[in-house]
Amino acid sequence: MSTPAPISVEELHQRVQSIFLSCGLTPQNAEAVTDVIVAGERDHCKSHGIYRIEGCMRVIKEGMVKPDAIPEIVDTGKAVIEVDANAGFSNPAFFAAKEMLVARAKETGLAALVIRDCLHFSALWHDVEALAEEGLAALSMCPSYASVAPTGGTEPLLGTNPFAFGWPRPDSHPYVFDFATSVAARGEIELHRRAGTPIPEGWAIDRDGNPTTDPDAALAGAMLPFGGHKGSAIATMVELLAGALLGEFMSKEALEFSGGTHLLPRHGALILALDPTTFSARSGRDPLAEGERLLTAIAGQGARLPSQRRFKARKESRSQGITLSEAELAQLDLFEAKGLAAL
Amino acid sequence: MSTPAPISVEELHQRVQSIFLSCGLTPQNAEAVTDVIVAGERDHCKSHGIYRIEGCMRVIKEGMVKPDAIPEIVDTGKAVIEVDANAGFSNPAFFAAKEMLVARAKETGLAALVIRDCLHFSALWHDVEALAEEGLAALSMCPSYASVAPTGGTEPLLGTNPFAFGWPRPDSHPYVFDFATSVAARGEIELHRRAGTPIPEGWAIDRDGNPTTDPDAALAGAMLPFGGHKGSAIATMVELLAGALLGEFMSKEALEFSGGTHLLPRHGALILALDPTTFSARSGRDPLAEGERLLTAIAGQGARLPSQRRFKARKESRSQGITLSEAELAQLDLFEAKGLAAL
Repeated sequence: MSTPAPISVEELHQRVQSIFLSCGLTPQNAEAVTDVIVAGERDHCKSHGIYRIEGCMRVIKEGMVKPDAIPEIVDTGKAVIEVDANAGFSNPAFFAAKEMLVARAKETGLAALVIRDCLHFSALWHDVEALAEEGLAALSMCPSYASVAPTGGTEPLLGTNPFAFGWPRPDSHPYVFDFATSVAARGEIELHRRAGTPIPEGWAIDRDGNPTTDPDAALAGAMLPFGGHKGSAIATMVELLAGALLGEFMSKEALEFSGGTHLLPRHGALILALDPTTFSARSGRDPLAEGERLLTAIAGQGARLPSQRRFKARKESRSQGITLSEAELAQLDLFEAKGLAAL
Repeated sequence: MSTPAPISVEELHQRVQSIFLSCGLTPQNAEAVTDVIVAGERDHCKSHGIYRIEGCMRVIKEGMVKPDAIPEIVDTGKAVIEVDANAGFSNPAFFAAKEMLVARAKETGLAALVIRDCLHFSALWHDVEALAEEGLAALSMCPSYASVAPTGGTEPLLGTNPFAFGWPRPDSHPYVFDFATSVAARGEIELHRRAGTPIPEGWAIDRDGNPTTDPDAALAGAMLPFGGHKGSAIATMVELLAGALLGEFMSKEALEFSGGTHLLPRHGALILALDPTTFSARSGRDPLAEGERLLTAIAGQGARLPSQRRFKARKESRSQGITLSEAELAQLDLFEAKGLAAL
């Protein structure tokens, strides 16, 4: 069987957007959700690419998300801007408030964006990268479904709680990292289960809190944080800052609210933006030049900077298009033709 | 030989303070430096207790720190407050600006404190704990001396770059963590060297970038970040946010400036304070009550919350006093009698 011909990033964007429009998303919402999904596919992040379309459609069908939600910005004029996703996807809410966040951070030096009451499915790198492209350093974090036990604990309590950071680089893509604070993603354990192979030690514990390499026992038990007690502390911090601080769901509540992990979680998110120009003004130094000295020295040692594989894939996708499998193309056809009825 | 009788926290405070006064610190500077050193000893953090007195005296004697520096606050009225330590210790600068930081965070929801041009020797938990006691969530970070190689790299480039977080708890000590983003502290490797024992795998690489368990080879090479590439990314973030962003020294420059690790490093520090009342206001939820649900559930699983050992030691020290060794007491006597001439 021959490999299907690649399609351009723009064509994929148009196809995904038409699917979401047919599912009842407003043009703005469809644009924002499409943007982040196509970016994932473009960057060869398959786990956050078109694979996510079905999950988004499912929460629409189940009535768990409002496809036509209109994000509502609440601005007190201070350092904290809030945007209520109004039970819509997180991405339109972020994009609705992004310009104000950038302006506020450049005005005050430091600003926060609180996203309330959103369905969340996307990688955080998309947001911190967008802010870094505007010249800002950015932190982003959110809870998820309780599936991770604290180090020394026995039961799922924390989410995989992703933590992302972006730093602007004058002549190249930003420095961006984005990772789960669990050792592995739940999907990686699922892949081992399907393949019938054991998971590495240190990934998970079973229902009784004992270490396990059995994927089934791990899925019935809990994942573990990365980096032992230090990673567990960071996962707890994410839970406190992006859950408790905002008055939004913690990972345990998000799970209880949805009744399982089969649908996307609903919770809030916290994004901090810091303006290097403001912070460094009195020093007489160029903060981005200092950043470059560090980052080029890291790369010069042969150490990998995070996101480099994504940026390489992006370049390839832009010049050569994106190659999808027959099955993926058939699914796009089906979703385009039938919309939510395809599920 | 009988164990010396314990001395009270207050008596130790008075003795340490008189040493620093005799070394030329202003009363405010002596108070702030004494406060953090006695807190370390009180909490049985020996690595940040009275052991630090000698290191502080040494930088005074070498002219690397200004004992009578007066911290200078620069306030633009926005979300970023700066305090120039003016080549003094970091602690008086923090305490000079703390009240303003607390007020600003409560007014704007989120505020940053930049400490410029300070000598740094103290644990970061002291500052985030002080902010949490005021009802604020707080993050603190700073570079240090380049002694850690990025994951996949071969040479020291990052500092041990501590990262600390505090969260207020209504009826108990705050949730506080504070850790080096390296696997181990340099002092731990030094202890293995003296004992003639190998260091655990994963702590360090030798001069050629190869993994080593030989403490001498490790000290000549580089330490490694905790948690693999994720910890390395966080260490890099600390370098960018608490170094480049502020226009202050990066860890490599701090090392070059001092010409070695035998004296305390000079650099800046970044502290972020977030007000749970502001962030949660529109949610109708009590952020601290939500935090308690998480933290009591973690402890309820038998998982250790960070800093619990410190708080237990603090209680003991307050009721039973602090027991110092004969050698430690003799050193206090010597420093009190001779001041800088004791070195």
